[in-house]
Amino acid sequence: MVTDSLDGIALLEELDPSQRQELARLCRWRRYAAGEQIIDRQSETRDVFFVVRGQARVVIYSASGREVSLDDITEGGFFGELAALDGAPRSASVMAVSECLVATMSPELFLKIIREQGSVAMQLLWRLAAMVRASTERIVDLSTLGANNRVQAEILRRALEARTDPEGRPVIQPIPVHGEVASRVSTTRETVARVLSDLARRGIVRRERDALLVLDLGRLEVMVSDMAG
Amino acid sequence: MVTDSLDGIALLEELDPSQRQELARLCRWRRYAAGEQIIDRQSETRDVFFVVRGQARVVIYSASGREVSLDDITEGGFFGELAALDGAPRSASVMAVSECLVATMSPELFLKIIREQGSVAMQLLWRLAAMVRASTERIVDLSTLGANNRVQAEILRRALEARTDPEGRPVIQPIPVHGEVASRVSTTRETVARVLSDLARRGIVRRERDALLVLDLGRLEVMVSDMAG
Repeated sequence: MVTDSLDGIALLEELDPSQRQELARLCRWRRYAAGEQIIDRQSETRDVFFVVRGQARVVIYSASGREVSLDDITEGGFFGELAALDGAPRSASVMAVSECLVATMSPELFLKIIREQGSVAMQLLWRLAAMVRASTERIVDLSTLGANNRVQAEILRRALEARTDPEGRPVIQPIPVHGEVASRVSTTRETVARVLSDLARRGIVRRERDALLVLDLGRLEVMVSDMAG
Repeated sequence: MVTDSLDGIALLEELDPSQRQELARLCRWRRYAAGEQIIDRQSETRDVFFVVRGQARVVIYSASGREVSLDDITEGGFFGELAALDGAPRSASVMAVSECLVATMSPELFLKIIREQGSVAMQLLWRLAAMVRASTERIVDLSTLGANNRVQAEILRRALEARTDPEGRPVIQPIPVHGEVASRVSTTRETVARVLSDLARRGIVRRERDALLVLDLGRLEVMVSDMAG
């Protein structure tokens, strides 16, 4: 059986190392290959999943087959908490983006920790508050911006989180996959391709071998804030 | 000074009556007239607001003037918890829909209660989980449905929450205000008016003096589920 430590899980960081060891023993451990589904939206499970290694993506596939991507969970994160909390069906599916090592905890144990460990409850409240804020932002973008503008805003968001090169220019790495950006801002792959070409033609971004270099962050910021009103 | 009891506030329902009395004394109390602003999105406050009487609406006005309505807080509810939790700026504005009696609590006291009272922390977790689920649903609607379809889905949602007449037909009361529905599903007043006329022409709804009567809930459900995929 695969087992590992939960020491890198932010939600549990204020527990004693011995408490985390005990919890690690009570979890089921499993590896998922890149592309493999971890939660099926149709499933009846209520478990919580800790991403010990790798990256996972929360997505909804509409009945018409459209993919709406909601969130990426990176190493040290978790998902599946909504169904564990309220007992209602899964709100979305989750799939492994890269190979993942995941610890699965029963909803009963998860709720027990929240009730007994104030620090965990507090971290979970912050996480849910951040999710509400991110969702609100996206609802406002979807309600007020056109698709082109949403793609520009998403590139800006990634640029602001990216590392910078020695000249201080953001380096978005790896190069954004068109289909991924499309699913993230609810548009088509073609629109993403068109907006990126347009940004390149204007000298705002440049496609490198394995990264998108943002040459003029200031102009990108002005474009995005202009269209927001 | 106006004061009243917090006994009707669901978040605090598992506290002792004496604890609620003590908290009521520590709140600031105020009445707001219908249409008056309670939270300005630009403000620096971090207080939490309990709606003891009346109804409030959480909205964002985009810089271009478009109103995106996010949630309605009814009697016994609360708002303002995000900024109190994470200390970040307000995510939205809140205005009184009807005359409101509101108790305002400092963020310090709110956080103290959450830390010390497990039942309150748990209720707050459920509330935030419900907000995440509702936001996710709206993001998927905005990403996959056209504006007409979103209006139909909103009428269906209200029909399913409405009381029914003796023949079991949902009575949506008061009649939905076009501008309100528009702001709720991110479209124009004109689109809402058009969709409602269309539903009336097909015999699915009927406008009464002070209510919208849903004559054929089954057909409305089929229309909404057809377009979802």
